[in-house]
Amino acid sequence: MQSFVINSALDMHLHLRDEDMLKLVAPLTSNTFSGALIMPNLVPPITTKEALLSYKERIKEATKEDLFDAHLTLFFQNNYSYEFLNDIKNDIIAIKLYPAGITTNSDTGVASMDVENLRPTLESMSKLGIPLCIHGETNGFVMDREAEFMPIYESIAKAFPDLKIIMEHITTKDAIELLDKYDNLHATVTLHHLLITLDDVAGGMLNPHLFCKPIAKRPRDKRALLKAALKAHPKLMFGSDSAPHPKHKKEACGCAAGVFTSPIALQVLTQLFEEHNCLDNLNSFISLNAQKIYNLSPKTKMIKLIKKDFVVPEIYEYNNENVVPMYAGEKLSWSLVD
Amino acid sequence: MQSFVINSALDMHLHLRDEDMLKLVAPLTSNTFSGALIMPNLVPPITTKEALLSYKERIKEATKEDLFDAHLTLFFQNNYSYEFLNDIKNDIIAIKLYPAGITTNSDTGVASMDVENLRPTLESMSKLGIPLCIHGETNGFVMDREAEFMPIYESIAKAFPDLKIIMEHITTKDAIELLDKYDNLHATVTLHHLLITLDDVAGGMLNPHLFCKPIAKRPRDKRALLKAALKAHPKLMFGSDSAPHPKHKKEACGCAAGVFTSPIALQVLTQLFEEHNCLDNLNSFISLNAQKIYNLSPKTKMIKLIKKDFVVPEIYEYNNENVVPMYAGEKLSWSLVD
Repeated sequence: MQSFVINSALDMHLHLRDEDMLKLVAPLTSNTFSGALIMPNLVPPITTKEALLSYKERIKEATKEDLFDAHLTLFFQNNYSYEFLNDIKNDIIAIKLYPAGITTNSDTGVASMDVENLRPTLESMSKLGIPLCIHGETNGFVMDREAEFMPIYESIAKAFPDLKIIMEHITTKDAIELLDKYDNLHATVTLHHLLITLDDVAGGMLNPHLFCKPIAKRPRDKRALLKAALKAHPKLMFGSDSAPHPKHKKEACGCAAGVFTSPIALQVLTQLFEEHNCLDNLNSFISLNAQKIYNLSPKTKMIKLIKKDFVVPEIYEYNNENVVPMYAGEKLSWSLVD
Repeated sequence: MQSFVINSALDMHLHLRDEDMLKLVAPLTSNTFSGALIMPNLVPPITTKEALLSYKERIKEATKEDLFDAHLTLFFQNNYSYEFLNDIKNDIIAIKLYPAGITTNSDTGVASMDVENLRPTLESMSKLGIPLCIHGETNGFVMDREAEFMPIYESIAKAFPDLKIIMEHITTKDAIELLDKYDNLHATVTLHHLLITLDDVAGGMLNPHLFCKPIAKRPRDKRALLKAALKAHPKLMFGSDSAPHPKHKKEACGCAAGVFTSPIALQVLTQLFEEHNCLDNLNSFISLNAQKIYNLSPKTKMIKLIKKDFVVPEIYEYNNENVVPMYAGEKLSWSLVD
């Protein structure tokens, strides 16, 4: 039977939430991944060392997995002092910047993306070597939000050439093209943006489980993202943006944005890379690229997959929490070996 | 108190469904409109004289309103004989063409939009003076489906210069521009496409009640539609495409496409035209244009509106059927006078 081994998978963009949802979803990443970059958009967001260390502790408790490192991030504020950042820098892997109100729990994000408004914190980050992760969307028309953000990425990349910048969950051909224009620009791409377009969200029936921010774009965008991922573009990392919301909130009128992919990511990526005869590049896409970009040395964790049907569970549950994964109830062609 | 009178309003694109849903929604149009063009996409679709006359009877029974004319349509098939069409022409106002599978109950629509494939029926329609209504979407990317259909409109308009063609529920600037290129092209536009863009459907939270086909497009498209409606472009008619689906189907995972606007259309249009200082054009947009295009002489029905707050009901119900209107629970600034 055909098999494939993924070595020390890293998910460089992950939402673990808190409390029961954390307990539900954290093991679904830590059982197969070697590490993950954990987003700080809790309520309230993580802006202090105390909150950070306490969250790290709760994650550790929820994963109960030695071969997994949770890399934490701080929620960007434009008035962090150099001293504060210097003190916290060894406890975080990056700082995540959200324009205010742009996605789940981002109300306290940055009001103006003007470089001068961001300068105090960015100068310290640049000096201290702390990478900057950005949710790069304007508040414009939903299909244009990421494309409209490109000049902002450029202005920050130019103003802070020594700052490592990660364009998070990119969804457009424009972002792929920008990647090669500035040495200090990198990116993550999700699993779902390699697979879906707006057609899958709203082209047939409306599908709330595929509704996410940034919204899935055009076929040409998907093609550009997929091409870059399949060849393991060295500045592109896997970041699932796996974002659990309870079933009742996803299926309600006015559903929240987010696709939950953690428990199926390795299987689907293997299937996708195999279909395109690019399996040789998968370990770079899912681990080596991130290791280089973030200077990580993850614990060795070999995950073997075999080409055998796997039916995705309809739902994952813990206490009163639950979450519906992408491809719920559908059949994948690769399985994890227990 | 400011008031305005709408004279013999016509809704030139309306879905009344059947059975209890028909009984629920038909009066919500017939109580304020003088006439409506009723779409034939029942299950099965209306393709025989018997089905047509029987549906007409059921509509009459459901409306119980003398001052309302239900103008029926036939579901397009490319093999209708001249004799059949000649026999039925006085019972219908138009024939509605659906590309197969493009929207609700359209599975038995036309498989190929090639002019030659449509020629037999279109030649008879042209000779008999029966207008052709078209749901103009390809099966391409959801944001491009209408724009991609423009060459098909052009090919039919050119091949049958004497055939009156109505581009139904147009949603794009492209369609507005095409309107002026061919004498025999006309169009309807809905209420909701004058008011919303994709941002309202999927820009914030996902809003199933604003999910429709064709999907709402870009701000520039909405501006072009609104501009043409406000000036009462003589080739543009009001057609609500009011399409009731029960609440549980709209709010379920995988919701059906359609916005229900019949009971609020007059109030919202009055509000919209007043806001833009175009009230003088409203009777042309909502009645006179359609009278000229379809050679109609509707019964006189004066509906008086006053500038007084009206809170839209959360839901309309009849027996086991219900439907949530656009702007449910929200306040409009114009009310009907009882």
